Amino acid sequence: MNGKRSFASDNNSGAHPLVLEKLAESNFGHVTGYGHDIFTERAKDKFKGLFGNDIDVFFVFNGTAANILSIKALANSYNAVFCADTSHVHVDECGGLENFCGCKIIPLKSSNGKIEKEQIGQYLNYKGNEQRSQPGVVSITQPTEYGLLYTVEEIKALTRYAHENGMFVHMDGARIANGIAAMDLDINEMTRDAGIDALSFGGTKNGMMFGDAVVFFNRDLSRHFIYIQKQGMQLASKMRFISIQFEALLSGGLWLDNAKHSNRMARLLYEKIRDIPQVEITRPVETNMVFAKVPEGIIKALQKNYFFYILDEANSEVRWVTSFDTQDEDIDGFVLCLKKLLK
Amino acid sequence: MNGKRSFASDNNSGAHPLVLEKLAESNFGHVTGYGHDIFTERAKDKFKGLFGNDIDVFFVFNGTAANILSIKALANSYNAVFCADTSHVHVDECGGLENFCGCKIIPLKSSNGKIEKEQIGQYLNYKGNEQRSQPGVVSITQPTEYGLLYTVEEIKALTRYAHENGMFVHMDGARIANGIAAMDLDINEMTRDAGIDALSFGGTKNGMMFGDAVVFFNRDLSRHFIYIQKQGMQLASKMRFISIQFEALLSGGLWLDNAKHSNRMARLLYEKIRDIPQVEITRPVETNMVFAKVPEGIIKALQKNYFFYILDEANSEVRWVTSFDTQDEDIDGFVLCLKKLLK
Amino acid sequence: MNGKRSFASDNNSGAHPLVLEKLAESNFGHVTGYGHDIFTERAKDKFKGLFGNDIDVFFVFNGTAANILSIKALANSYNAVFCADTSHVHVDECGGLENFCGCKIIPLKSSNGKIEKEQIGQYLNYKGNEQRSQPGVVSITQPTEYGLLYTVEEIKALTRYAHENGMFVHMDGARIANGIAAMDLDINEMTRDAGIDALSFGGTKNGMMFGDAVVFFNRDLSRHFIYIQKQGMQLASKMRFISIQFEALLSGGLWLDNAKHSNRMARLLYEKIRDIPQVEITRPVETNMVFAKVPEGIIKALQKNYFFYILDEANSEVRWVTSFDTQDEDIDGFVLCLKKLLK
Amino acid sequence: MNGKRSFASDNNSGAHPLVLEKLAESNFGHVTGYGHDIFTERAKDKFKGLFGNDIDVFFVFNGTAANILSIKALANSYNAVFCADTSHVHVDECGGLENFCGCKIIPLKSSNGKIEKEQIGQYLNYKGNEQRSQPGVVSITQPTEYGLLYTVEEIKALTRYAHENGMFVHMDGARIANGIAAMDLDINEMTRDAGIDALSFGGTKNGMMFGDAVVFFNRDLSRHFIYIQKQGMQLASKMRFISIQFEALLSGGLWLDNAKHSNRMARLLYEKIRDIPQVEITRPVETNMVFAKVPEGIIKALQKNYFFYILDEANSEVRWVTSFDTQDEDIDGFVLCLKKLLK
Repeated sequence: MNGKRSFASDNNSGAHPLVLEKLAESNFGHVTGYGHDIFTERAKDKFKGLFGNDIDVFFVFNGTAANILSIKALANSYNAVFCADTSHVHVDECGGLENFCGCKIIPLKSSNGKIEKEQIGQYLNYKGNEQRSQPGVVSITQPTEYGLLYTVEEIKALTRYAHENGMFVHMDGARIANGIAAMDLDINEMTRDAGIDALSFGGTKNGMMFGDAVVFFNRDLSRHFIYIQKQGMQLASKMRFISIQFEALLSGGLWLDNAKHSNRMARLLYEKIRDIPQVEITRPVETNMVFAKVPEGIIKALQKNYFFYILDEANSEVRWVTSFDTQDEDIDGFVLCLKKLLK
Repeated sequence: MNGKRSFASDNNSGAHPLVLEKLAESNFGHVTGYGHDIFTERAKDKFKGLFGNDIDVFFVFNGTAANILSIKALANSYNAVFCADTSHVHVDECGGLENFCGCKIIPLKSSNGKIEKEQIGQYLNYKGNEQRSQPGVVSITQPTEYGLLYTVEEIKALTRYAHENGMFVHMDGARIANGIAAMDLDINEMTRDAGIDALSFGGTKNGMMFGDAVVFFNRDLSRHFIYIQKQGMQLASKMRFISIQFEALLSGGLWLDNAKHSNRMARLLYEKIRDIPQVEITRPVETNMVFAKVPEGIIKALQKNYFFYILDEANSEVRWVTSFDTQDEDIDGFVLCLKKLLK
Repeated sequence: MNGKRSFASDNNSGAHPLVLEKLAESNFGHVTGYGHDIFTERAKDKFKGLFGNDIDVFFVFNGTAANILSIKALANSYNAVFCADTSHVHVDECGGLENFCGCKIIPLKSSNGKIEKEQIGQYLNYKGNEQRSQPGVVSITQPTEYGLLYTVEEIKALTRYAHENGMFVHMDGARIANGIAAMDLDINEMTRDAGIDALSFGGTKNGMMFGDAVVFFNRDLSRHFIYIQKQGMQLASKMRFISIQFEALLSGGLWLDNAKHSNRMARLLYEKIRDIPQVEITRPVETNMVFAKVPEGIIKALQKNYFFYILDEANSEVRWVTSFDTQDEDIDGFVLCLKKLLK
Repeated sequence: MNGKRSFASDNNSGAHPLVLEKLAESNFGHVTGYGHDIFTERAKDKFKGLFGNDIDVFFVFNGTAANILSIKALANSYNAVFCADTSHVHVDECGGLENFCGCKIIPLKSSNGKIEKEQIGQYLNYKGNEQRSQPGVVSITQPTEYGLLYTVEEIKALTRYAHENGMFVHMDGARIANGIAAMDLDINEMTRDAGIDALSFGGTKNGMMFGDAVVFFNRDLSRHFIYIQKQGMQLASKMRFISIQFEALLSGGLWLDNAKHSNRMARLLYEKIRDIPQVEITRPVETNMVFAKVPEGIIKALQKNYFFYILDEANSEVRWVTSFDTQDEDIDGFVLCLKKLLK
């Protein structure tokens, strides 16, 4: 165990020092369990400071739960959930949505993680056809699993279409901070003002030890969420320890600073390797991920020094993710190692 | 927020300082997610040190999940799960077991949280009757929700009966450390050697910030648990932060020290109030809980100073729980306050 | 196979001749599947004739499905369903409710199958307590599994209480016709006017070959039932064959005639055995069931001639159920056989 | 209601006269419920006559249930089920599989309803990756929803591949009789000898009033099926009425005669329209379905006389299905009507 910083995922990092500090500060005395405590109240106030008072916010253990529980609040078991075929809720949650919600996922073909309303259109013919799962929820990921961003206009087009057709819209924002940092706009523009009903607001990947939030802009849908949360095994008894981390993140703009930094690190990596002839950048670098094709022969050797995932074995396309704690010297070291191997 | 230590629950406490220290120590660099890291390996080794090498152990976020996920590994949806009508999995998990496992819970009448094999007998006539949920799992809580302990012989009688009749046995050990500390025996005697198939091993209530474990002694049942865990939204990406806490607990006997201390505090409380004429101790004090009837008129006032739960409003029976961090002066202050109000 | 009429259950009988005749009559040509056919329209009109136009009615394959699917329409997965501990949905559906709805069943102690609002009261303290399944549905069986009847006032007391406390009320009317026949009142008095939200209206036990109905008086709850029905594997493609049977039952009062007849047969049986000293009638005979304690030694021999179930082995309490096709000579033969064995 | 025979689906037909006759014959006296009767025994014997004694067979209400319940017996909730994106279990069962089994469906692109093992290969990399639903079941439809047939060799290639990779294979045989009739081989060659583990054996579409069967060739998987069936609301109390229909079908080869006839009718239709210039037959006619593109302008008018479904509105591709009761004059009338409209 050397604790080196690698490029496998932003969940390979630890907790931001300020988060740890806050955890230590709050670690005294007794407070009521299950979120009925002052820390949780304060953290919720921070969210209200961000999004306005007319929201409901809940803290869960991880992003998988944030997605699945919030979609349960938006859907009945006979509903279909539309999402990109690359989306975390479809690909990386071991069928948790189907099992917990009973819903059918309709994965829509996507090469970059983004979907368009036209792809949903063909399924709307089935509204009212009792043989078919009924269109219920559109779930989009912002930024996508490939680090790309929907524009505000693209989001609005989807939410407008969904609402016109009796569906709700969920946003998987496991890396929402990276998205906001990249687009340099107010988070409301990209979420509530763009028509999102419920948002998975990522904490774990943005410097928390554990914890993600579910933010409801449509409060008709959140009235019973606390029971879904408890039944879903996601109501922490020592809730203060999630809450205090969110308070840390949302105080003094740490959440955005962390995101800006990791985006910058990805940018730096991109700039340092874009001109290497044997390396082909395969997707736009908009947030904290770089995708590239590299000579197959060097992958194993490179992984010995820096762990990362291969996206597509056949094409030797790999994924490098930066994190809030990635340092300039990590990039330098990595690029050096890469160049050495390419010689 | 004054952070005073009250007597509501052992989950109202924070994390033990050594746990926090270990969290800080491990908070550097990157490690692989989802448990494929050295901290998790080490924590599992600690469990193997305790129980032997032929176990499987998994770390989840909380006790509710430890119960529900492990029972899913032991049962099919058409099975019945027998447990005390006071048990956490029946009363305090918002129907999570029914929802996640599809099973029927058969709650058995119990005044102290313990059940006996004779209570299950009547349901065994239904084995093979396709109209009825088939006997599948017996779940016992050690110590019970009332702080009482099954003897090893009582546990063996239940597990023998269960196994003879084709059932598996789960032990909810959210406070298992308190039980071991009280009985002063090797944990194996009470669990694996007594025939338990799967154990929820409590961490949260014993000084961790969050995290509980599932220990399988019957490894036929755990082969696919990792998928149940992920599908159940309980596979932490930054797993090291649960693992390191368990390493802290299981190193140098901290888990038992914490439990002994909280048991001692409950004993102390018991001794200081047993002779107060207006207070009637209602149940044996075997671990870290004291149950008592107190004059109805003083409850509200007492709760203003020390939060705790009323078990039975009609009889003004209340519950006081001590914790690893309860101090002698907490007991003194509480007893003083109680006496003052009783005057 | 001799096809003798026994006393095991009203589902041991076949179909009423008029039902079979109608099935044959409708068995020609093609009609659209899944209920979009003229037979289904006509059958629904019959139900509207009975209950008024402002109902929704659906036809399913059996009573188990009528119960489980309708309760799914009334409850969320985090809800508790209150019912008698003797009720079919708790005891005789192999945990189907828990599995399909995700709900917790709270079985209330009952010796005759009836429950009272006072039994529910203690659980209402848990409204808003996120640890507990939230009170959602009260399900009563009319007549009960013991053949007893709630009075209209008793039903009203329950529905008023349920509605005042935010719950819905389901009635399992697998033998509703026997109840109506016994009480000699309009079916609306006992159902919709008494505040029932959804009714399982039994067909199978009342002379149909297969098929039961779900009637919604509260149409807010039925808007999406068709999807629950299809997802629940209960939407018959050749729906006409359920519909035509209901049309047969509801035409010319056949449903009530069948029920009156079977009630009369039970009464006859009761009267013929009430004075036999070795036979003790154990429950009031209000519909089509007779419960009695008989000398243990004769049970096996009696069962050789007439099949029936033993309710309580320990007390040699047995259950005899009559059916629409039970004949006077069946009763005579049975009583003769019984008396012979008792000599 | 004119009862005309149309071409919408083979479930628009009624019951075969011999089936109805048998129903009437068996409609006397009392027999034990839930399948413990002599009719059911006899029907099971018929299945054993067909497939050999070492099978287990169960009778359910409909094909949707046959598919979903049998797959539940083959899979755990964390498994993925691979099937064609055109398959009934994916498209036409309102998400019943996801809801009842908790599984993820992986729909594989197919234009004719057939899938190949190469399509599954990419997902096998995920075996052992706990983020992903684990490969569990391959479900194929024979003949497919487009009336096409897998050859025995194709089936064997799939089952061999599945078994080698730890998966089970389910065959949706809602129209299995049409497949056997078309291929003129022993049903065992196409099912058990080809490596199928569980078969949905269609009854409803082959002349029954209601009822389908599940046949297990792999009896390790069926040991607990009866509980799945009851919990799944699919255990008929008056089971004899499904059983007797299957006995009718399997006696004297009625099941094959019905299928041969409907296949022949489809062939006849095909031959009568293949040379009409404005009609383009779009798929091979192998069983009892004809797919064709027709001028958009005539569809509505044609549907006024003969109901049928439009498969693809954009391309005016329609589906015509024949049935056991389709007559030569139905074909003649239809072709005449079609030609008239095309003038």
